[in-house]
Amino acid sequence: MENFLAHIPTALHFGKGCVEQLGEAGSRLGKRALLIYGKGSVLKNGSYTDTKKQLESAGIAIFEYNGIKPNPLAEDVDAAAKTGIENDIDFIVAIGGGSVIDSAKITAVCIATGASAWDVMKMKVKPVSAIPLIAVLTLAATGTEMNPVAVLQNPGTREKIGYRHERLFPAHSFLDPAYTKSVPANYTAYGIVDLTAHCLEAYFGDGDASLSDRFVEAIIKEGMEYGPMLMKDLENYDLRARIMWAATNALNGLTSYGRLNGDWGVHALGHVLSFLYDMPHGATLSIVYPAWLRNMKNRIPDRIAQLGSQLFGKEDADAAIEGLEAFFSVLGSPVRLSEGGLPKESYDDILKLMNENECTGAARELDNDDRENILKFMV
Amino acid sequence: MENFLAHIPTALHFGKGCVEQLGEAGSRLGKRALLIYGKGSVLKNGSYTDTKKQLESAGIAIFEYNGIKPNPLAEDVDAAAKTGIENDIDFIVAIGGGSVIDSAKITAVCIATGASAWDVMKMKVKPVSAIPLIAVLTLAATGTEMNPVAVLQNPGTREKIGYRHERLFPAHSFLDPAYTKSVPANYTAYGIVDLTAHCLEAYFGDGDASLSDRFVEAIIKEGMEYGPMLMKDLENYDLRARIMWAATNALNGLTSYGRLNGDWGVHALGHVLSFLYDMPHGATLSIVYPAWLRNMKNRIPDRIAQLGSQLFGKEDADAAIEGLEAFFSVLGSPVRLSEGGLPKESYDDILKLMNENECTGAARELDNDDRENILKFMV
Repeated sequence: MENFLAHIPTALHFGKGCVEQLGEAGSRLGKRALLIYGKGSVLKNGSYTDTKKQLESAGIAIFEYNGIKPNPLAEDVDAAAKTGIENDIDFIVAIGGGSVIDSAKITAVCIATGASAWDVMKMKVKPVSAIPLIAVLTLAATGTEMNPVAVLQNPGTREKIGYRHERLFPAHSFLDPAYTKSVPANYTAYGIVDLTAHCLEAYFGDGDASLSDRFVEAIIKEGMEYGPMLMKDLENYDLRARIMWAATNALNGLTSYGRLNGDWGVHALGHVLSFLYDMPHGATLSIVYPAWLRNMKNRIPDRIAQLGSQLFGKEDADAAIEGLEAFFSVLGSPVRLSEGGLPKESYDDILKLMNENECTGAARELDNDDRENILKFMV
Repeated sequence: MENFLAHIPTALHFGKGCVEQLGEAGSRLGKRALLIYGKGSVLKNGSYTDTKKQLESAGIAIFEYNGIKPNPLAEDVDAAAKTGIENDIDFIVAIGGGSVIDSAKITAVCIATGASAWDVMKMKVKPVSAIPLIAVLTLAATGTEMNPVAVLQNPGTREKIGYRHERLFPAHSFLDPAYTKSVPANYTAYGIVDLTAHCLEAYFGDGDASLSDRFVEAIIKEGMEYGPMLMKDLENYDLRARIMWAATNALNGLTSYGRLNGDWGVHALGHVLSFLYDMPHGATLSIVYPAWLRNMKNRIPDRIAQLGSQLFGKEDADAAIEGLEAFFSVLGSPVRLSEGGLPKESYDDILKLMNENECTGAARELDNDDRENILKFMV
């Protein structure tokens, strides 16, 4: 077991109606709030109305930025920060899924430091400071609500990258599973894939952390049990709640304590698909993970077999790979590029950018041959 | 799933040499520290020397109180608070196991409020405030290092009770498994029993929280795998580390989120044995839990059988009860009153005080008949 620090300052409020505590939480952070959100869904699922009502009744002045895209762009963060600075806001309230909350995290740094979003992402800003952030989560997937990580993309540099800093933890996160009831089937599936992939990225990191391995097993099994049930019953609050809480735990540190690192090679490869074709993040992961595992089967057979034993009761690498692939398919998430709607003509571009970005993992290094091999398994 | 708040402000530093960060952490809390500890072991295992060195090199003035007993007394907390108030201290550093850290938590409230320890425990103090606390843990067992709970006893009122308040979270906890290498076999075993019992108290609470159930399974299995190995190899750092981290997770909220409550009936019954005969806490739990389960077998057969399925691969209540009892025995912890050194003459006194204190659980109520039945199973 490696040394580690476990420290999550976020106060995470979970359950039906929990947003009723937002006004009080906000009033302890200041008098002027910047509301950040994307388009559409938050206006329909009640989260926007409920949040605004809370802020208003707490006497907090509200300013808004609503231009965040599903694969969030650095330029939108710069625009949000401009709105925040011009209006001298005290804190941010982000309403949405990972893209909105991640954008808000970087906006909080841009406002406090005056830096541009991409300079923050590229770690050119030191020391890092940030104004406080409240997150109202409306999509179960990324875990950003309880971690200090943000992912943005920059068309100018052809990159989609992550940034991690302890100042990025939300001060409060509000998770009302009822807000996720209207998430359509495909994005519901992508969220379940995403939480599974987060567990796997931790699992394939370096280091021997047995309890973290058991937590990986617990969280993936939760998704395997309740995910397919949810796909048949999308408005079921209880199933939404179980998946939402599983997704939070998949990336709040619990699966990583005692490890040297996580791998994150699959995420790096998946980001290329999102960048080139605006493919939803979860959909990229259900395509790349089985392919990555097949490429790794000869290199780390025992570790993959151990996963088979934990998840499918069979200490066998093929059982693990096929079992996970079947799980993603049952959810309705693509497991091949063709299922993700990409034509054969795209494959060269994909491989080119994967190689150009030198997509690799922290624990399991990938070279050009690996990436070519993985692409073949994705076809 | 019930609504809940997940918020642990404690910064938990884990691993070999982590105390090297204590001086810096302390210097952010103030200039004058009260060191609280018990007798003996912390002077031998290096924790006292290392902690003092850290505080000294940070230029922090040190005052000391070292009278805490293994089953901690309210009167010692009052004496510690007196020392703290007289010396105008800014924060507390507790070095030891659960009894020392629990005492320090209540001392922190007594110093901030001027109240007596027992008035705090009896919830007569409002509003609650507390000076900051740093915990240096030297025994893997209670989970107090990452929760807001303290347990004290009062010979005057014949009670041993718990108190919970969000102000009781340590600001920092330092967990160096190396400090636990010299814990003798019996207390090592009691710690593993304790972490198992904490999981079970959560598991037998009210409410349907599937992920929390899976975390219970994960933590108990960690103890079942590495506990017996540790008993044969007490100075093994890696095994100490695995058990220490399991114990923290057994009572930091992870096993309880989404439940209505935990039960804690077994703890209440066990506290009577500690109170009357100064029996170590973990030893009381390995005696009471199998007896409590046997008494409950007809009332909640499915729930106990589910535990059997999760821990022993057999959906059977008897398999669960016998499996847990065998596990406690393998560790060397007593599973009958006689093994705990109590003569038959003591049984009447035990039952009398259990009934006098109306020992019961929050989820599974116990009456006099239950307590008599449980006592019979303890014989």
